[in-house]
Amino acid sequence: MDMPTPDARIIARKDELVTRLRGVLPGDAVIADGYEIKAYECDALSAYRCPPLCAVLPATTQEVSQVLKVCHDLGVPVVPRGAGTSLAGGALPTADSVILGVGRMNDVIETDYENRIIRVQSGRTNLSVTDAVEDEDFFYAPDPSSQLACAIAGNIAMNSGGAHCLKYGVTTNNLLGVTMVLMNGEIVEIGGAHLDAGGYDLLGLICGSEGQLGVVTEATLRILRKPEGARPVLIGFDSNEVAGACVSDIIKAGVLPVAIEFMDRPCIEATEAFAKPGYPDCEALLIVEVEGSDSEIDSQLSVIKSIAQSLNPIELRESKSEEESAKIWLGRKSAFGAMGQINDYMCLDGTIPVSELPFVLRRIGEMSKQYGLGVGNVFHAGDGNMHPLILYDANKDGDLEIAEAFGAEVLKLCVEVGGCLTGEHGVGIEKRDLMTVQFDPVDLEIQMAVKDVFDPKWLLNPAKVFPLDSSAKRRAG
Amino acid sequence: MDMPTPDARIIARKDELVTRLRGVLPGDAVIADGYEIKAYECDALSAYRCPPLCAVLPATTQEVSQVLKVCHDLGVPVVPRGAGTSLAGGALPTADSVILGVGRMNDVIETDYENRIIRVQSGRTNLSVTDAVEDEDFFYAPDPSSQLACAIAGNIAMNSGGAHCLKYGVTTNNLLGVTMVLMNGEIVEIGGAHLDAGGYDLLGLICGSEGQLGVVTEATLRILRKPEGARPVLIGFDSNEVAGACVSDIIKAGVLPVAIEFMDRPCIEATEAFAKPGYPDCEALLIVEVEGSDSEIDSQLSVIKSIAQSLNPIELRESKSEEESAKIWLGRKSAFGAMGQINDYMCLDGTIPVSELPFVLRRIGEMSKQYGLGVGNVFHAGDGNMHPLILYDANKDGDLEIAEAFGAEVLKLCVEVGGCLTGEHGVGIEKRDLMTVQFDPVDLEIQMAVKDVFDPKWLLNPAKVFPLDSSAKRRAG
Repeated sequence: MDMPTPDARIIARKDELVTRLRGVLPGDAVIADGYEIKAYECDALSAYRCPPLCAVLPATTQEVSQVLKVCHDLGVPVVPRGAGTSLAGGALPTADSVILGVGRMNDVIETDYENRIIRVQSGRTNLSVTDAVEDEDFFYAPDPSSQLACAIAGNIAMNSGGAHCLKYGVTTNNLLGVTMVLMNGEIVEIGGAHLDAGGYDLLGLICGSEGQLGVVTEATLRILRKPEGARPVLIGFDSNEVAGACVSDIIKAGVLPVAIEFMDRPCIEATEAFAKPGYPDCEALLIVEVEGSDSEIDSQLSVIKSIAQSLNPIELRESKSEEESAKIWLGRKSAFGAMGQINDYMCLDGTIPVSELPFVLRRIGEMSKQYGLGVGNVFHAGDGNMHPLILYDANKDGDLEIAEAFGAEVLKLCVEVGGCLTGEHGVGIEKRDLMTVQFDPVDLEIQMAVKDVFDPKWLLNPAKVFPLDSSAKRRAG
Repeated sequence: MDMPTPDARIIARKDELVTRLRGVLPGDAVIADGYEIKAYECDALSAYRCPPLCAVLPATTQEVSQVLKVCHDLGVPVVPRGAGTSLAGGALPTADSVILGVGRMNDVIETDYENRIIRVQSGRTNLSVTDAVEDEDFFYAPDPSSQLACAIAGNIAMNSGGAHCLKYGVTTNNLLGVTMVLMNGEIVEIGGAHLDAGGYDLLGLICGSEGQLGVVTEATLRILRKPEGARPVLIGFDSNEVAGACVSDIIKAGVLPVAIEFMDRPCIEATEAFAKPGYPDCEALLIVEVEGSDSEIDSQLSVIKSIAQSLNPIELRESKSEEESAKIWLGRKSAFGAMGQINDYMCLDGTIPVSELPFVLRRIGEMSKQYGLGVGNVFHAGDGNMHPLILYDANKDGDLEIAEAFGAEVLKLCVEVGGCLTGEHGVGIEKRDLMTVQFDPVDLEIQMAVKDVFDPKWLLNPAKVFPLDSSAKRRAG
């Protein structure tokens, strides 16, 4: 993956930059030491690495504003970083940039149960938002697999989803307002503790903009009352296609499970070896979970079970206890880790119409043979958000490049069948050059012109989202 | 309400404009006759009227593109118009503008039940989207009171809601993609048949942009499977405040009715006289409806009824039959018409945090005495979207101005308690000058800079959304 040539004039002024940043932040909040800085040279897409000039860890909106003013003055690019869990390289530094980490900004500012909202600093982790309200029986719905680690800032940047987003929506459906600092240091409030706002929906635009329009420092989030209960069923099939058809039939029937998760044989086997969740021996496995009172659960599951039965499942197992439910989910939540134990992998994130699942799964299998690299599939099937894991050997010359080519072909297929390049991981650097597959020049021009409005010098999160030559031209002015 | 001074140079070129428009459209699609044009001189905010230069009724995206090219060439402002049901003057012409009506564009382009989507031309009415899919037991969720008449184009422009949006969300939550024509005639596709898309969320930005960024000609909408059943309860209270507290308690309890509607005594009495729904004699009435199987309905209603009982209702009546349910809803859906029978009124559209309902209702009552004008309240209480109807006499000099001042004070109060100017009607001309109450100059500047991107000459839907002096400066360049 190409990166832009760093600006030597900026690098030459590193000392001045660090001195000025130390003038606006506490001493331990500016990291410029060559060894310490290595912690910031990559995110979870660790195949790509580049140390930044320095990293800053502001603790307040005001400090973020001061940092951005300094960088804006000096023309230094800034890469905002949540918890660094991006799988698309969304927080990868350039050599001439400052990493702005929001990790110290993790306070709860306000909880308001009557209006079902919580206001937090953006560095707070996803799961600890729920931690803050669960004593009152509330929770925050979006649940990325990385929810123990990932920050709300990154969730907003990537419009993150998760297993339970089929029912509750993704981040944009659970975000009511943000405090954001523009690249010039100006602090703006967008949205609030209400739906819709008059004027243009800038909040919708900010959510998913990958840290390129401003640095979000505080967020007002919708919290929900915990459901009375929840119950998953495991459904095993002897082919990916039939499992895909089952998903499509459930969606068409109009029942709304909170989650429909899909795993194929490579993932089932790796997970079984790693976490021992007791999954059946089959080609494809669905975990379908419904929520509500016991009677609501029974009535929803009766529809789902009858659809599954009509497709001759190898196994159809309804959880009988909380322990059993926890075990079923432990397996699913361990799947990525389990695959990582036995292989290097590249995790894709294409989204397709649910009815295309059988076709796309078959085509991915064919491409796997063609490229000579294995694939595991574990993903949120209910909303068509696929996560093919392309298996490769990082120590084998050329393997990464083959995996990249394979990945690009899968994502092109997603676009072809009416889907899109990314469901929840964002474009980052990973899918930057594929944007032209999904968007024609007029579409891209409008998106870039919107970036011009918020960040005229193109300093925020450089070299991401747009094809490298387009963003380079834009930055040159 | 001030309107901008029309551009005399444009008006002088009317004949050239009409000739060129007739060159790109069928003869009956250009209306320039002084009498016929009167049909387009106002929308549902009929206190304000102004005939446009002419009106065009294109039938396809290509024709819209041709029209916009002509107007762009000649520098003529264009006011897009759905069905003209805007309550905020969103489709009010200026004297130097062309009305672009989408009424002839009402085809269903595609239905896809497997993926739960329908693609329609934007002039199709809201209810006829459901009509097109209900034989297969599907429906389109957003249901503005004007759903029999209002067009999807207007729903998208205003991000319309409706009684059932508490559960299903507003238009932005049910819109997947649009075909849109830019002011220069370029045709763009935004979004698609999937959630999220990579790049910036321009679809979220378009939805609610009041026809100022482009003319939406086609839309891909989410359709949902009809619920097994639904059942409303009527709950009567002896004060607005207690009814407001009941709404707040229901929301806090975490049950999610599909609708919580509120009516106060003036509306109850007018509706009872007009549609005879058999409403109880009380100060405030809630209609709370839940959906699902019989057992799901029973379990949700048991929570709601016990909350209501704890607040000593005057009446608590659960519907026993479909006829009774229809009668309850007939009353609610007739409320605006019933009020219109006995009074001129101005319908406001502020949204507030649900917990502020009791306070805001009390303050509106106090203001009513202060201004000497009556008020009726009938609104979507579950999501805090209020519709105070300020009663005035259109034939009495000065009454409209008092109503405007009263309305402005109510909307300022909504912003003060953490709410906003508009829930679903849009800013239009009505709330244009109040935008500075909600947004500070930096916020407004960003919104206007976004408009610059899509419509650099500020020709689309002039004199709306932004304070008149700001948009005039912008248009002057």
